[in-house]
Formats: sequence, C-alpha cells, structure tokens
Amino acid sequence: MRKFPAPIHNLVAAFSTLPGVGPKTALRYVFALLRLPKSDVEHFARSLMALTSGITVCRLCKTYSETELCEICRDSRRATDVLCVVAEPRDISTIEATGGYHGRYFVLGGSLNPVEGVTPDVLNIRALFERLESEPNIGEVILAFSPNVHGETTVLYLSKAIKKLNRKTTRLARGLPLGADLEFADEVTLGESLSGRREV
Amino acid sequence: MRKFPAPIHNLVAAFSTLPGVGPKTALRYVFALLRLPKSDVEHFARSLMALTSGITVCRLCKTYSETELCEICRDSRRATDVLCVVAEPRDISTIEATGGYHGRYFVLGGSLNPVEGVTPDVLNIRALFERLESEPNIGEVILAFSPNVHGETTVLYLSKAIKKLNRKTTRLARGLPLGADLEFADEVTLGESLSGRREV
Repeated sequence: MRKFPAPIHNLVAAFSTLPGVGPKTALRYVFALLRLPKSDVEHFARSLMALTSGITVCRLCKTYSETELCEICRDSRRATDVLCVVAEPRDISTIEATGGYHGRYFVLGGSLNPVEGVTPDVLNIRALFERLESEPNIGEVILAFSPNVHGETTVLYLSKAIKKLNRKTTRLARGLPLGADLEFADEVTLGESLSGRREV
Repeated sequence: MRKFPAPIHNLVAAFSTLPGVGPKTALRYVFALLRLPKSDVEHFARSLMALTSGITVCRLCKTYSETELCEICRDSRRATDVLCVVAEPRDISTIEATGGYHGRYFVLGGSLNPVEGVTPDVLNIRALFERLESEPNIGEVILAFSPNVHGETTVLYLSKAIKKLNRKTTRLARGLPLGADLEFADEVTLGESLSGRREV
C-alpha cells in the first residue's frame, strides 16, 4: 500500500469503510475502476452523490424512499389488515422476492441487542405502536425476524406488547430449508419441523 | 432487489461492476453507506471524481502516477543498474512492502495470454525495449511474474529477447512458502526447492 498516488490512497481508504472490505480488496476495486472509461467512474461518483440527496425515510414504514411515502405504502392494492415487521429495509426486498406477501411493512431498524446498546428506545418501536393504534384494521402482525438470539428476543418482546392491543402476532415458520440433509439438521430445527409437520 | 428507490438501484448497479461484487454484496455496501453521515458519502464521491482527473501514467515505468514521472522513477537514491518488470502496478506495492528491492520498476500491463487476446503488442513490450536501449547501465532485468502459465510464458518470452541485448535476466525463486506443510507441497514446487536448496 505504499508508493501510490494520493487519489488512489484516498479512494482505497473510502472503500475500506465498507463492510467486509480490507485494504487489499479496496485496492483491487480501485485498480478495476482505473481500467474503466472515465465516464463510468464519473457516473459511479454521481450515483453516490444522489444517495446523499435523493433518499429519505418513508413516514409510515420507515424504509428508504425517494418520496414521503414509499412505493409499497402508496400502493392501494396492498392488504391493510396485515403488517409485516422486519429488522432492516433490505428484508423487505427479500420478502417481496418470494411473491407470497401482499400486505404492508414496518421497518424496526434492527433487532434488540442490549449488550451492543440496541435497546427498545433505539428502535422504531414507539412509531410501530403509534401506527398500530392509528390503524385499527390491522388484525395480524407478522414478526419476520431472523431465527437467532436477537431476532427471537425481539419477537418475544414485540409479541407480548402487541397482544395487549388484541392483535394477533405470528412469526415465520421454522423447519428444514430446501436442499437440507436430515442427517445434519440440528435438534431444535428438526424438532420444530416435526411439531409443525403438514399433511401431503 | 425490488421496491427500492432509484438512487439505491443505480448505486447497486455501479458497485456490481467491481470485481467479485454481486447484487447482494452491492446492496450491503449501499445500506452501509446509507448509515454513514452524508459528509462521508460526499467525501467518497469526491475521491472517486479525483481518480478520473488526478491520475496519469508514469512516462518511464508506466505505473499510475500524479505526475509525469512517478515517485520511484524520480527518486535518485534508487539503483539504476537493475530493473524489475512486473505485470500490474499493484505488484510494485507488493514488492516494495518486502523492503528488499531498491531498484526501479517497469509495468508491462499484464501477462501474455494469447487466448484472451493479450499478445505482445497489447503489452508495453516495445516501451520496455526502448527503455533498455536508452539505459545501457541496466545490467540485470528481474522478471517478477506470478508462477502460473501466463506468467511463465511472459518470463520465457521476455528473457529470450532481453538476452539478445546482453543483459542478465532473472526470475523470482520458487520454493516452499512460509508456513507450508511438506506433506501438501506439489512435486514441482518441492523439486525446485530441493534444487535451489541453501546452506544454513
């Protein structure tokens, strides 16, 4: 990482701030960019600038949006009796890709993790309950969190509070993923996929 | 990758042009940037712009440089009787990091790979010979290429031509890397490290 012009060093430093990118990967990216036409690199830079000015947060669901209300919240064809609560905006695109959900979303902004300072007041929990109160027709709240310690904690915490409002709460089914091998399944997953077995 | 604002999509597309970056990694980068302060993202964008305007190629050694001659070519303390030929500019930083070389460099721009169209005329081979002719005090040319098919081809091709100019050509030593296990060494490497054994 020595004996390179300052513009290369500066850009390597910028790329190194991205998750999972060390100096070697960053240098690889910079050399790849140096081989591109100038116009492509300028377009890249403009796309970055657009991110700082063109993106806001949807007033209703807290996902990233260009407008006050995001595309999904504006879509009148989406069901209004069910709300899917997710940790991050990217989870919305993952669930949308299944094509199996037609309701609306709410982005909590993370999973509860008190050790790292993610307590209920850091997340959008107050906004979630304001939304549930203002939309009495939401009968079911799907808590779509990853099945790990923090996700489970969040699901337990939210379901307890939401049940007090007389709304149904559900969580994602657990079981064997497609392509899994019974031999290598852990006991908890296999146990849950047994108890949740379906008639064929 | 659906239902995201256009600025996010555009930036994901830009990141996806980098080597080894697919849409999922690109999206991860973009979400990380969205969490940074605006000023950091703007700084990133400016660093990118600087790459298009601030970088040229060193007249002598063909590495990336901010000035007509790069830092190493301008450094009068570097030895002038030895020239290290490398495939890419990044190889210079790798060799400099060893601290074991004090001569100058020449960047060929790649390794010979006729199947993918990298023939001698695509590389800076003409410029290399012009430099050797104009600098008669270069007595040794180190051919520092990766020990793979294309690197070996380039070393053979160049050494043949450079020997005609009555200059010594050398290549990097082969042997077991630090931390290697004799049991898993391939025959060629072990054979070369036997024939190149050193007295201790």
